[in-house]
Amino acid sequence: MSSRLLKGFRDLMSVELLPRDTIISTIKSVYESYGFVPLNTPSLEYKSTLYSYGEEAGKQIYTFTDPDEEEVGLRFDLTAPLARVVAGYPELPMPYKRYQIQTVWRYDKPDPGRYREFMQCDIDIAGSRSITADSEILEVMHAALSALNLNFKIRYSSRKLLNTLIRFAGLEPEMGNPVFRILDKLDKQGKAAVLLELGEGRVDASGAKIRGLGLPATAIQAVDTFLSVQQETREEALASLKAILSGVDGADEAIADLEAIHIYLAAAGINSDRVAIDVSIARGLEYYTGAIFEAVLVDQPGFGSIMGGGRYDNLVGVFKGDTVPAVGASIGVDRLYAALTASGKIKSRQSTADVLMTVMMPERLNDYRALADTLRKAGISTMLYNGDDKKIRDQLKFADRAGIPIVVIVGSNEFDENKVSIKDLRVTKTQKIETGDRKEYLQQRVGQMTIPMDEMVAQILHLRSLD
Amino acid sequence: MSSRLLKGFRDLMSVELLPRDTIISTIKSVYESYGFVPLNTPSLEYKSTLYSYGEEAGKQIYTFTDPDEEEVGLRFDLTAPLARVVAGYPELPMPYKRYQIQTVWRYDKPDPGRYREFMQCDIDIAGSRSITADSEILEVMHAALSALNLNFKIRYSSRKLLNTLIRFAGLEPEMGNPVFRILDKLDKQGKAAVLLELGEGRVDASGAKIRGLGLPATAIQAVDTFLSVQQETREEALASLKAILSGVDGADEAIADLEAIHIYLAAAGINSDRVAIDVSIARGLEYYTGAIFEAVLVDQPGFGSIMGGGRYDNLVGVFKGDTVPAVGASIGVDRLYAALTASGKIKSRQSTADVLMTVMMPERLNDYRALADTLRKAGISTMLYNGDDKKIRDQLKFADRAGIPIVVIVGSNEFDENKVSIKDLRVTKTQKIETGDRKEYLQQRVGQMTIPMDEMVAQILHLRSLD
Repeated sequence: MSSRLLKGFRDLMSVELLPRDTIISTIKSVYESYGFVPLNTPSLEYKSTLYSYGEEAGKQIYTFTDPDEEEVGLRFDLTAPLARVVAGYPELPMPYKRYQIQTVWRYDKPDPGRYREFMQCDIDIAGSRSITADSEILEVMHAALSALNLNFKIRYSSRKLLNTLIRFAGLEPEMGNPVFRILDKLDKQGKAAVLLELGEGRVDASGAKIRGLGLPATAIQAVDTFLSVQQETREEALASLKAILSGVDGADEAIADLEAIHIYLAAAGINSDRVAIDVSIARGLEYYTGAIFEAVLVDQPGFGSIMGGGRYDNLVGVFKGDTVPAVGASIGVDRLYAALTASGKIKSRQSTADVLMTVMMPERLNDYRALADTLRKAGISTMLYNGDDKKIRDQLKFADRAGIPIVVIVGSNEFDENKVSIKDLRVTKTQKIETGDRKEYLQQRVGQMTIPMDEMVAQILHLRSLD
Repeated sequence: MSSRLLKGFRDLMSVELLPRDTIISTIKSVYESYGFVPLNTPSLEYKSTLYSYGEEAGKQIYTFTDPDEEEVGLRFDLTAPLARVVAGYPELPMPYKRYQIQTVWRYDKPDPGRYREFMQCDIDIAGSRSITADSEILEVMHAALSALNLNFKIRYSSRKLLNTLIRFAGLEPEMGNPVFRILDKLDKQGKAAVLLELGEGRVDASGAKIRGLGLPATAIQAVDTFLSVQQETREEALASLKAILSGVDGADEAIADLEAIHIYLAAAGINSDRVAIDVSIARGLEYYTGAIFEAVLVDQPGFGSIMGGGRYDNLVGVFKGDTVPAVGASIGVDRLYAALTASGKIKSRQSTADVLMTVMMPERLNDYRALADTLRKAGISTMLYNGDDKKIRDQLKFADRAGIPIVVIVGSNEFDENKVSIKDLRVTKTQKIETGDRKEYLQQRVGQMTIPMDEMVAQILHLRSLD
């Protein structure tokens, strides 16, 4: 039988999982500090639940007929299940501020770093129309990405502003989504290519012809003007937008939302270098109705968007007669992990054990077990060696390969003298540092030492505290 | 669109998820203290991987044809994926001590408390033939269940002992599995029913006839003798087994294993009241080759087995030319959660927020936000109210329904005087306790108080420390 994995799926070994756990628990504790509560929803749902926002996303959903002959699918994201929950539990106290950290599945083209099963960390506020809810989502995202020590930039805009653009460009409302889908390519293609796609079309790098949307020149000119808004700071962006969109129907309301968010963020001490207005972001999903957000890593733009979200006031209504307003955002853990690893900002760790308790004399196993227990009681994670290799040399090699930093060795002499030998595998030779003027030697970091048994705990706690 | 869930699946809301998180993190920290490292495997695997131990389990596997036309299935347990990993990563340092906490899916008859998607917490040691590995699995299980403050009993036996029973009963080796499957019903049916099923069959409570295995009377007599072994303590069980099975081929080796585990446990201070020998356990799965274990809750036997495991030296070999010995056990979180809830041993908690910062004057939202921030910086999880209800009464009702214990209220008078009002929703009226002989009153727990703003953090930290 083969030990192959399906394309786009992977095993996560400890060397990846331990730092990922740190990322996830950091995000989770920030979410909880704002009072968001956890929710888990099933992996399998009725296909119709998952298709709640259109056929486009539906193409990526893993669907099948289950043994009960039901048409089911694997969770595609955490937003549709949230909308179903909000619709299905009328007794939920509102606003419902929930976080959800679960895997999702998408039948996508697998690429290096892109998997068909990956984890999302979402927060959403359901049941509030207030722009302070949108602002808080940005505040929490800022707090979470800051807690991870990332050099990030969050950008926000709104669907209302984009709808104003459509009117500004003299276009019919139904041209909105096609135009937004093209604007969504700004980051990757640049403005010139986007303007061509809005008009007569263009030829891409490979020579292939990309059909244009065929907008009139005046409309393209208006989009060009809109995209040239000054937006170095949020204040500049607001002033520039007011000037450009002056008198356009809906502009005042759209700009007022962006400004309310700005005032909230400014009061929270969050500056434009971290959270800026960016009128060029569009966000692909069609369900957004208000604010939209995304974030990139400043030093690692290649990792793309590490967070995205926005307001979606109509999604819950798909499941329920009356609508429930909602706003939220999602952090992708897998991209974050890849970026943090690439930047060296996360300490790789393979082992949970601080210490390997080797077994030189198998007949005294219970004594080794008792020593291991002493260490564990002092909070030192300790693996007792119970493999099949009898030689200490092999056990040391095992510790090294398993990434266990400290090894305890006790032979018959040590037992007789109530001593233990401790070996720090991170040190290849004894380091001595000369100190003071009387040439005293301070033994700072020792590769191997033999000490009284009752000093073992203190010594290992000390060694563990060294990097 | 309907907000229904599939049969056997469920949403986990915060009131369940928060205590479950405590259970899982307790188990995880015990596993890590012994140096077990985490592993996550994909939810979807090739169907053939999941079917690695027979068609019987296979009936419960969710399988389908994926969009790549591959025959795939959802993870049925965490053991087959571990075997695939051990076979597929020859560079893994051995012994590989791994834990895995993930959901599994089984197409089973859904019952109250039995779901089609549930979580398992497994540990396994791959690459060690030593009985000390089996012993350590029991030690870790004992530590994990103890850390959860459970009144549990772990019972162990071995397949080798059961094979000895087959010889003792004068039966052919191939009669082993059919006999073990009937022995597995001892807990539920009792000895008399089991002996009848081994022989001529019986009529069950509903009047239905259950066919017997048709064993000869001498064999049934031998099983009866075997099952009557004295096993109040491990020492008694070992002595009794030695007497009964004296001279039976393989008995010495089987009993020696049980005894080695006993000696290890005794040295670890683990007594027979917590971990006993029980020759009546059989464990359903056919892949076990050595020790077998299970655990029940002493006060809540109705919850069935909360832990099960054993040694399976041949499973990795299904994926790989050479075999890799392995032993492990699995804790079912969902049953544990149900049992702990039923016994009142776990504190239910619905909210992550310690405090709701109400908003009486929406125009001063930034001041409320700043107060919330002050609390968060002091480690107090705080939800800022940004719902659509303007009345304080409604906001208080929200806090109560959302399970948030403490509420902060600041009106215009309080702002002017630099004060805050704090309301402890767990207290319905002021409690005063008379103390000493001079009739001093000690105000122990206050429902509502107005205090200077700069005492807010200290006062809330104090309130939070009360139950």
